[in-house]
Amino acid sequence: MPEPVLTRTTVGIVGGGPAGLMLSHLLHRAGVDSVVVDNRTRHEIEQTVRAGILEHDSVRLLVDSGVSDRALREGHEHRGIDLAFGGSGHRIDFPSLAGASVWLYPQTDVFIDLAAARERDGGDVRFGISDTRVVDVTSDRPGILFTDADGVAQEVRCHYLVGADGSRSICRQQITDRRDHFREYPFAWFGILCDAPPSAPELIYNHSDRGFALISQRTDTVQRMYFQCDPTEDVADWSDDRIWEELQARVGANGYTLQEGPITSKTVLPFRSYVCEPMRHGNLLLAGDAAHTVPPTGAKGLNLALADVRLLAEQLELAIRKDDPTVLDDYTDRALARVWKSQHFSYWMTTMLHSLPDASAFDARRQIGELDSVVTSRAGSAYLAEAYCGWPSA
Amino acid sequence: MPEPVLTRTTVGIVGGGPAGLMLSHLLHRAGVDSVVVDNRTRHEIEQTVRAGILEHDSVRLLVDSGVSDRALREGHEHRGIDLAFGGSGHRIDFPSLAGASVWLYPQTDVFIDLAAARERDGGDVRFGISDTRVVDVTSDRPGILFTDADGVAQEVRCHYLVGADGSRSICRQQITDRRDHFREYPFAWFGILCDAPPSAPELIYNHSDRGFALISQRTDTVQRMYFQCDPTEDVADWSDDRIWEELQARVGANGYTLQEGPITSKTVLPFRSYVCEPMRHGNLLLAGDAAHTVPPTGAKGLNLALADVRLLAEQLELAIRKDDPTVLDDYTDRALARVWKSQHFSYWMTTMLHSLPDASAFDARRQIGELDSVVTSRAGSAYLAEAYCGWPSA
Repeated sequence: MPEPVLTRTTVGIVGGGPAGLMLSHLLHRAGVDSVVVDNRTRHEIEQTVRAGILEHDSVRLLVDSGVSDRALREGHEHRGIDLAFGGSGHRIDFPSLAGASVWLYPQTDVFIDLAAARERDGGDVRFGISDTRVVDVTSDRPGILFTDADGVAQEVRCHYLVGADGSRSICRQQITDRRDHFREYPFAWFGILCDAPPSAPELIYNHSDRGFALISQRTDTVQRMYFQCDPTEDVADWSDDRIWEELQARVGANGYTLQEGPITSKTVLPFRSYVCEPMRHGNLLLAGDAAHTVPPTGAKGLNLALADVRLLAEQLELAIRKDDPTVLDDYTDRALARVWKSQHFSYWMTTMLHSLPDASAFDARRQIGELDSVVTSRAGSAYLAEAYCGWPSA
Repeated sequence: MPEPVLTRTTVGIVGGGPAGLMLSHLLHRAGVDSVVVDNRTRHEIEQTVRAGILEHDSVRLLVDSGVSDRALREGHEHRGIDLAFGGSGHRIDFPSLAGASVWLYPQTDVFIDLAAARERDGGDVRFGISDTRVVDVTSDRPGILFTDADGVAQEVRCHYLVGADGSRSICRQQITDRRDHFREYPFAWFGILCDAPPSAPELIYNHSDRGFALISQRTDTVQRMYFQCDPTEDVADWSDDRIWEELQARVGANGYTLQEGPITSKTVLPFRSYVCEPMRHGNLLLAGDAAHTVPPTGAKGLNLALADVRLLAEQLELAIRKDDPTVLDDYTDRALARVWKSQHFSYWMTTMLHSLPDASAFDARRQIGELDSVVTSRAGSAYLAEAYCGWPSA
């Protein structure tokens, strides 16, 4: 067996999704070299349909760091959401409540922009690798061993190793003293893509006795919608007609009507929360889904990953420039402070809007009392708006 | 058996606590006569120790309606609370956040003031009655049958009958088509009175790994404190020393130290929520604890009762003046809108601050994420402050 081909770099990054590529991009701008590896091909990642709400600061990060301004040109600014319950919609207006807005811009496009920027800037990104292992993470020379897309054995040695390798992270397994914090929810989302014009200009978070529904948009001709379902639901049991009937019933309760069209994708999305603590182990650092998962209700997953790497890029640059790894000592605490606020926000939006299987009539009425409290209070609406648009970085 | 002594009045009120007496007082000011009955003696009610936080509008109601300004003279204005968690206290400043404050003034004193005002104004209030029955509530002449304190059979006939007779309401039983909405909480409060100087100028809502504690005040020499406990806890198992040790450990986690002193009262207070729907049945109307119970965490019980009777007095006056009972048709909806918001607020304060027996490590960390979200957000703090100080009347 031949010796692997050795590459030396400063930061080795496992995972070439938005978190890994953005970190590599930010490090490049700071003059720090990195190598990114991912076992998926670039094409595979581009095919993954994911959530599409970017916080104000996430868009700014893409634009101001020179990745691309395509989010501003081709994305859609959303200046609010509708909270729909009790027979009508209630507008949460972001600019007037939180001085901010969010952008509808799919995660796939964020990836495309980042991959293009890394290519443009001569970044070393290896897609389609296999047999990935990470080694020696507590030493001063952690390594990534893998077979590249051409079948050649490779070894990357670095000063710092970052696990940005998603919710099934292999890097996380290296943190032997970690605590895994899980929360399961007793429901899932049935997600569809359909060929239809938008039913509303912005997102509708729709509470109903039949369960939650989320009406979102993708383009002028393709829409994304979700409805709360049982986690064991089988998409084969759901004809287009049955889906439209269910969705129309849920939003119709609050006075909305959906524009229907052929359904091109049906998926049941699991609903779970996870946090890994700590997010650092020696010279290994985690970022994004590798360290935490949030339910989709708060639209926080991608934004939280970008917040992680923004912080991590700053700290890595400083640690490398000063040759002082203690700069990273508060990475876990600072990152987790935001993570736990996001976990709470996602939990709050989820429990406020979904029908909980064990809910009594009391609980259901209290839920309306809560929604009523939020929309009739400027402070309550602003508390929701500022969380949705994203808190300032820590 | 002799015929009962008959009294005719416009509004018959069962229950002579703060809700019933305030209603009678407000009706008197509007020129509407009423009779109030209560099976407790005036002395018994004065001995009942109850919560003591009055919302801004509750104090105004007492003062502006001419009951008494003693709350302002002898009560204590509280301009905030401390939310204590994660090692320190975090001030929620009511005036700057919500433009309001609350008053520490025990419910017993509210009762004393109201009873004195009714006596001063020649109100017909019968304490210490027995064998109370309410009859014919759907007719236009509902009645209250009882034996008075002197053993004489009495009958009060009225146009409208109000049940302000507390959580064990006999009036509520007349609403045969009612829905009873209950929620039990898996813990209780261990409440003490002690002879000691105040440990803090205002209330401390203290979160800790050992469970919730509330440090409140009564006078310069008597203090009221609570700590979360198991509902089956026996006060006999708790020596003064053990109680102080537990309280000091809980608040000590956030940097506070309590002034200790002899404990003069130990009680385990149950924790439950209840709402009766509707609050009207024919010419019978419910107000206060007869219609709803909230857990004490939000300090809403007495305030909600006073909000009910403020609304009810307005509607009864109008219904009587116009001889039009349809004025009362929206009493249930308007009263319950506030009730459900208060139920939510009480639930929110409770679940945010208590250790829930089935909480995972995830839940416990998310709870800190929530507390952190509230105190680091002006909007979040204001949302809490305005609910605590009381929403404007509907």
